[in-house]
Amino acid sequence: MTLQPIWIAGRWQAEPSPEGDIQSYNPRTGETLEARFPISGEATVQAALLAGSEAAEKLRATDPERIAVFLERCADNLESRADSLVESAHLETGLPIEPRLRNVELPRTVGQLRQAAAAARERSFSEPRIDTKNDIRSMRGPLGGPVAVFGPNNFPFAFNAVMGGDFAAAIAGGNPVIAKAHPGQLTTTRLLAEAAAEAIEHSGLPAATVQLIYALPAEEGLDLVAHPRIAATAFTGSRRAGLALKASADRAGKPIYLELSAVNPLFILPGALRERGAAIAKELSASCTMGAGQFCTKPGISILPEGPTADAFIAELKAGLEAGPSGALFGPGSAANISESLASWVSHGATVLTGGQPKGPGFGFQNTLASVSGSRFVEHSKALQTEAFGPVHLVVLATGAEQMTAIANALHGSLTGAIYSDRQGEDELLARMIEPRLRQRVGRLLNDKMPTGVAVSPAMNHGGPFPSTGHPGFTAVGIPASIARFTALYCYDQVRPERLPPELGDQNPTGRMWRSIDGAWSQGDVSR
Amino acid sequence: MTLQPIWIAGRWQAEPSPEGDIQSYNPRTGETLEARFPISGEATVQAALLAGSEAAEKLRATDPERIAVFLERCADNLESRADSLVESAHLETGLPIEPRLRNVELPRTVGQLRQAAAAARERSFSEPRIDTKNDIRSMRGPLGGPVAVFGPNNFPFAFNAVMGGDFAAAIAGGNPVIAKAHPGQLTTTRLLAEAAAEAIEHSGLPAATVQLIYALPAEEGLDLVAHPRIAATAFTGSRRAGLALKASADRAGKPIYLELSAVNPLFILPGALRERGAAIAKELSASCTMGAGQFCTKPGISILPEGPTADAFIAELKAGLEAGPSGALFGPGSAANISESLASWVSHGATVLTGGQPKGPGFGFQNTLASVSGSRFVEHSKALQTEAFGPVHLVVLATGAEQMTAIANALHGSLTGAIYSDRQGEDELLARMIEPRLRQRVGRLLNDKMPTGVAVSPAMNHGGPFPSTGHPGFTAVGIPASIARFTALYCYDQVRPERLPPELGDQNPTGRMWRSIDGAWSQGDVSR
Repeated sequence: MTLQPIWIAGRWQAEPSPEGDIQSYNPRTGETLEARFPISGEATVQAALLAGSEAAEKLRATDPERIAVFLERCADNLESRADSLVESAHLETGLPIEPRLRNVELPRTVGQLRQAAAAARERSFSEPRIDTKNDIRSMRGPLGGPVAVFGPNNFPFAFNAVMGGDFAAAIAGGNPVIAKAHPGQLTTTRLLAEAAAEAIEHSGLPAATVQLIYALPAEEGLDLVAHPRIAATAFTGSRRAGLALKASADRAGKPIYLELSAVNPLFILPGALRERGAAIAKELSASCTMGAGQFCTKPGISILPEGPTADAFIAELKAGLEAGPSGALFGPGSAANISESLASWVSHGATVLTGGQPKGPGFGFQNTLASVSGSRFVEHSKALQTEAFGPVHLVVLATGAEQMTAIANALHGSLTGAIYSDRQGEDELLARMIEPRLRQRVGRLLNDKMPTGVAVSPAMNHGGPFPSTGHPGFTAVGIPASIARFTALYCYDQVRPERLPPELGDQNPTGRMWRSIDGAWSQGDVSR
Repeated sequence: MTLQPIWIAGRWQAEPSPEGDIQSYNPRTGETLEARFPISGEATVQAALLAGSEAAEKLRATDPERIAVFLERCADNLESRADSLVESAHLETGLPIEPRLRNVELPRTVGQLRQAAAAARERSFSEPRIDTKNDIRSMRGPLGGPVAVFGPNNFPFAFNAVMGGDFAAAIAGGNPVIAKAHPGQLTTTRLLAEAAAEAIEHSGLPAATVQLIYALPAEEGLDLVAHPRIAATAFTGSRRAGLALKASADRAGKPIYLELSAVNPLFILPGALRERGAAIAKELSASCTMGAGQFCTKPGISILPEGPTADAFIAELKAGLEAGPSGALFGPGSAANISESLASWVSHGATVLTGGQPKGPGFGFQNTLASVSGSRFVEHSKALQTEAFGPVHLVVLATGAEQMTAIANALHGSLTGAIYSDRQGEDELLARMIEPRLRQRVGRLLNDKMPTGVAVSPAMNHGGPFPSTGHPGFTAVGIPASIARFTALYCYDQVRPERLPPELGDQNPTGRMWRSIDGAWSQGDVSR
């Protein structure tokens, strides 16, 4: 069977010298899917970088309206091609067509693209600052080269290297994208790229604004993110792969934005446990099994005070998990990875209360609950924070307030952290002990709410301290903030007015863009 | 002679186990100054990190008003102690007392501190974003640990690890500082720390909000920036030292902000050269010799079209440099470093037109001009962009517009880049060829102006693409943007109103803070 074409410099073409090939799987059956995709080598990486650099130069001279039209057309194309897209994503990921793929993830992806289009048009994301006294003006501008985007396994649309959040943010910021498909979504990514190709033609953007490679040998991936022509990289995936790319990019002084694993701790305080333990257990088991537990924001551990109320909670949670839905894991190695994490937990004092085994048909793992004492957790906090990427949860039983605080102090950086407390104020003192510790260890702090949902909000932070990401100041979700990752700070010092970019002229070019003029935010013109 | 005390955990104390000691120099005479300062070891680093972590926790619970009062008191103390400070800085750096130290740099430093105080009080730097529909609120908050600040040799006040720009930004953002003095400014830094100590007492901030170490063995510096307790690092200095620290911090996933060397290219277009070559030559020689050429933003190379007009320009520039002021270099190794860079230029085709030799008394170097052909520059662009940190300038003679463009393409990342063009529009086409290439290679783009002055403006970018800094999106000068480096993105998802930080409550706590409420910037309250 012939290999699927790669998409380089605006042309769908056979990989000139494939270094082997790969196929996706049907996770529900474990069968290998038919379509074969090439592993690209150095020559293709170089060609993509060259074309991407040229596209970056052209994009800088392109009316942002075209970028907005492109992103909107991408959104339209996802809607008009929804049937084939959800069918393909369902086949490759095992995620249910309804509601997940068709009614939740695809609309979310469409919404992200439209928000990015609106941002590209309205341009407040460029954060213009004008100092009229010194005649110094600055804004966020494109990075000056292509952005490499590595998509994850768990969102075939919303975080796909083509059409996903990083893609939308990089392009809204004026940067071309070199997409590296996830091996579990090869056909879906090809279909998305075809939709993007049509949108490029429709909008008249440079042909190499988007390029697609399916697979790379590890060393080529490391070279790509460190190449002089690359502007930046966005990676969502495993800690091991992410840290290897980070080391390579860092050595070359290239920005890299990572979204890695996280345990997303949940503190359930004694009053809340008494007041509504059963309801929280139900929420938690639903949150843990959603998408077979393969969410970056899945709550991986909960910390609660030991005792009879906790025992009742655990029984409820166990029952919920046992009765809960069981979904497919994404890849042939997923169950083994979970088993490995679980074995590490057990060897450091955890007990498996239910589940704990791979299950078929296809790639699956039992919904699993384990527990461990607070003292063991504090003692072996690293091993017990090994992520188990699947429907698996660890309950940490603390002896009391003091130990809960010690556990909070032992937590590593996570995307989210939640505190459940009672409504009568009984938990308030303890909540105020835990909150500052949790605050500095997570990107998003929640109260009385599971972290699994990630709203596309301008106030969202889908980010967090290392090792959940590479920098605590950036978010991968939420426009305009996610665009800022793919911008450089452009300052103009007494640059002649006719040479200033439109964003920095005296007149507000869109009439709606927010600019900070002499320290005051305004949608108006510079007054003379 | 006894060693000067270090300042750890609020106490001036003898270094418990010094690993040797260091002294500053009088650069005007080359003599070693008397005071001896200890090289600190691991125990002191650990003690500083522990105290700094505790201070970070306390600072988070401190009314920002106290931080503002601290920064203001720092400013006041600099003014009231100006005599001893400028005397010490003059002795240690050789910079003239007037106007440089007393009338320019000290007032600038005082101004920065007052701006930082105003920002800490008014709090717009925290960039609150409120999404009322989803009840998600976010802001920039402190990093949760101490920030290590390594000061450079060239600004004993404005960029000093104590009282300089990074110090002011880190503390305004709510983070304690562990300052590492520059070896050339040991007594000055001690005096600044004494002024800070008084301000801590006055304002009631945690005692370890500022700590001071004078010197560290290289491996201890690498450990400090990668330590689990450190929150981030700011370093201004040489490329070699900076990149070593960066590698260590990167491996540990710790943010590090670098300001390294830069050549700050200047394009002088043919029309400008004809129109006002002599005036530009005068400007340029003044800019190159200011502070003996030891500015991060000193124009290191200029690119101009060869021919008789260029010859006249070079003659003017040469005369200007020969007649120009000669200042002391900061350290005993400075002249040797310049000689080394110059030797590398010469071995790659450059010719020394004037100067080129160290000169005494003390540490000095002749004002130096070299030139090289455009073709050589393009061919050996790396060697010819080796920084010569002193009163040294390289003219690159291009054969025409095409080669000027090729030279622009060969430039590495710099803090600044300038284009001089004529007033009649003759240079416009060429300026528009060069501008986009220069734009993506520099942080601050200037027209018809030397880059040496760095205004403390909210629109300033004192930053730029690697290797001039470690990330193109951040600035080291300009409030509030410089504070953002020392913040994490704090998101609150349905957090109970009484637990929200004041910045994110419905009511605007200062009545002046700008917040983005549902996408619109406002100084008002959230309307219900």
